[in-house]
Amino acid sequence: MPIIIVEGPKADKDTKRELVKRLTEVVREVYGVHHVSVVIHENETENVGINGELLSDVLRHRKAQGGKS
Amino acid sequence: MPIIIVEGPKADKDTKRELVKRLTEVVREVYGVHHVSVVIHENETENVGINGELLSDVLRHRKAQGGKS
Amino acid sequence: MPIIIVEGPKADKDTKRELVKRLTEVVREVYGVHHVSVVIHENETENVGINGELLSDVLRHRKAQGGKS
Amino acid sequence: MPIIIVEGPKADKDTKRELVKRLTEVVREVYGVHHVSVVIHENETENVGINGELLSDVLRHRKAQGGKS
Amino acid sequence: MPIIIVEGPKADKDTKRELVKRLTEVVREVYGVHHVSVVIHENETENVGINGELLSDVLRHRKAQGGKS
Amino acid sequence: MPIIIVEGPKADKDTKRELVKRLTEVVREVYGVHHVSVVIHENETENVGINGELLSDVLRHRKAQGGKS
Repeated sequence: MPIIIVEGPKADKDTKRELVKRLTEVVREVYGVHHVSVVIHENETENVGINGELLSDVLRHRKAQGGKS
Repeated sequence: MPIIIVEGPKADKDTKRELVKRLTEVVREVYGVHHVSVVIHENETENVGINGELLSDVLRHRKAQGGKS
Repeated sequence: MPIIIVEGPKADKDTKRELVKRLTEVVREVYGVHHVSVVIHENETENVGINGELLSDVLRHRKAQGGKS
Repeated sequence: MPIIIVEGPKADKDTKRELVKRLTEVVREVYGVHHVSVVIHENETENVGINGELLSDVLRHRKAQGGKS
Repeated sequence: MPIIIVEGPKADKDTKRELVKRLTEVVREVYGVHHVSVVIHENETENVGINGELLSDVLRHRKAQGGKS
Repeated sequence: MPIIIVEGPKADKDTKRELVKRLTEVVREVYGVHHVSVVIHENETENVGINGELLSDVLRHRKAQGGKS
């Protein structure tokens, strides 16, 4: 404890390494504890819903419009 | 917020699209909020336990008996 | 299975009863299953963060501005 | 998305405000995204187990020994 | 790791102490690991849904019928 | 209810079968209930952080040193 569960996107190992390192630093400093566990769940964009739409659909629509996230 | 986490079975994209759309409608109407996030975790039947048995075993036994869920 | 975990706001019993009833209907129809469990976690607004701010602070600021959610 | 769920100890509002602010900064920078939600679950020490013992018991033993975390 | 999250009922400290001790033994023996964390979420019966009904309603109906769980 | 969520390592089917069987026995005996659901999330070692390091890195370092877990 504490345990941090991340529901995030697909990511490469370097990204996850940096995420774990920096989340752990924050949790240690803010809570004043040493032991921190992190679990990263990588989710496909078709497994995430944002305001009623699949994230995969949202991103496809944005791309079609030349838009940005 | 709110956030809905679904521990469900494997499903195709159309099923997940409908699930996200309809869960979001319910959450918006019942709570009276706009922003709703959904995360769908698709679980293999051998990663789910029902009353002490793997779901994959339960389904295999039912099938052998010509039974139904 | 499936299991639905709701990270939501404080709510009264009637709201939660309706939420469970309607979420279960959706999950049954979309997945074509019978057994559905729901767990509702009620979270204080000071335990939720939205884009870097506590929800309790966001709501206080909105109220001060006469704004809406 | 992303969503960060923190299973942490009891904390005051200022601690949670700082936690949300800093976790969000890290997630934004590492993933390169804007929208970040955080949910903080505050857990009593008697609801956490560390290697087979309640955290409340571990802390009591440490205190009795004048030890540190 | 591993981490065990329990979505359970209200329980007294002795029950939770025994739960943590025994879940940890099982996880250690089955996975062959040493470090095990457990988090117990105690849920009110009105925050749990079973097949579309609040658990609090299910229990009240059973009691009225002199039934058992 | 209760529901047990396991954030664990990759495992074969026999391991998961034993885990579900034995976790369910413990939960039934300790809580005095019949219905128990288990969900096993199998996590890659590069998706788990221990005290700021990826578990995959921790294991690689240990191996290089001929160490043990």
